[in-house]
Amino acid sequence: MDNNKISDRVIERLPKYYRYLKDLCNSQIDRVSSKTISNALNITASQVRQDLSHFGGFGQTGVGYDVEFLKNSMQEILGINKRHNAIVIGGGRIGQALISYKGFADENVFVKAVFDVETEHLSGVLGVEVYNASELEDYLSKNHVDIAIISVQKEYAEQMAKRVVDAGVKSIWNFAPTDLYFGGGVVCENINMSESLMRLIYKTKSL
Amino acid sequence: MDNNKISDRVIERLPKYYRYLKDLCNSQIDRVSSKTISNALNITASQVRQDLSHFGGFGQTGVGYDVEFLKNSMQEILGINKRHNAIVIGGGRIGQALISYKGFADENVFVKAVFDVETEHLSGVLGVEVYNASELEDYLSKNHVDIAIISVQKEYAEQMAKRVVDAGVKSIWNFAPTDLYFGGGVVCENINMSESLMRLIYKTKSL
Repeated sequence: MDNNKISDRVIERLPKYYRYLKDLCNSQIDRVSSKTISNALNITASQVRQDLSHFGGFGQTGVGYDVEFLKNSMQEILGINKRHNAIVIGGGRIGQALISYKGFADENVFVKAVFDVETEHLSGVLGVEVYNASELEDYLSKNHVDIAIISVQKEYAEQMAKRVVDAGVKSIWNFAPTDLYFGGGVVCENINMSESLMRLIYKTKSL
Repeated sequence: MDNNKISDRVIERLPKYYRYLKDLCNSQIDRVSSKTISNALNITASQVRQDLSHFGGFGQTGVGYDVEFLKNSMQEILGINKRHNAIVIGGGRIGQALISYKGFADENVFVKAVFDVETEHLSGVLGVEVYNASELEDYLSKNHVDIAIISVQKEYAEQMAKRVVDAGVKSIWNFAPTDLYFGGGVVCENINMSESLMRLIYKTKSL
């Protein structure tokens, strides 16, 4: 399977397939047809067949896809079969919510530490190590971190992200309301809630 | 300006333009070129010119775009020049973080109330009205709500969303880790953090 062949649009849908296949597994469902996946995910059946063909096309006419096999393949393709260590930069309400969210364990992601300029309000409440932001580089030199979660205010997001990138972190998951981009083999996923909210309002207005 | 002419890809970028134009206004910058917007937003200059042409194409060669005029036009096009009332369904950490986030006032969105099956932990702490989930329909019959923010657990998301939709709410902003779709003139924006996290891990793995 050659990653380079997979378009961004397919990558967008990949996690949806995985999540659905995981639900099927949990419901002890062994096989699923492209039609069923299509209905569940609101993606056309032909699109489903085309997308899944990128991953070996395990579907058989009349029999459908082997759910567990496809789920495990996706898990490997996505890279969530391996454990990932994360840190949270910014211990405000969003940061705290992310630290407390247990769901990320499904993706094998575990928050190890949180960094903030003020740490008093965080100590002991979240079950992760708490450090002052000034200790960031020292921590990164001593601990392997796969993902840095940025949940600071907009005006600090870029400089904090740059600090973790300079320290060798390759994955930035940004919740600050500003898009971050880094070249040179660094990946950023920006979750911009304000933009999503604007799209919601626009689409509703355009009904 | 005919909304129907605007593709989803343009709509995706629309909030990015607006946010950037707002920043320029706050910095007292009067005019901006497509090249400058291009560099700031990581969108090609020709794409910028094409996108903005949907909104009247106010750019002038050598002079650029009138920032405030374009910003105000976008604000109107997006529909965020009008006030929107929101409620939050699910007062967990994510819900609380959303209620406390002041940034949504920029989009003219104001959270008026939060609903949960347990309300003791919410009373008085968030500065919004707190109701038991059982009071949802009664509240919606007496108060105009533009946007329902769903931040309950995955297994309750669909039924809670259906309840607000049945009560006439047209905009669903979903933070539960399951995509919601409604036909019949109801708009859903799904913020799926787990999927974003999976894309981040996949892209990093594929570096």
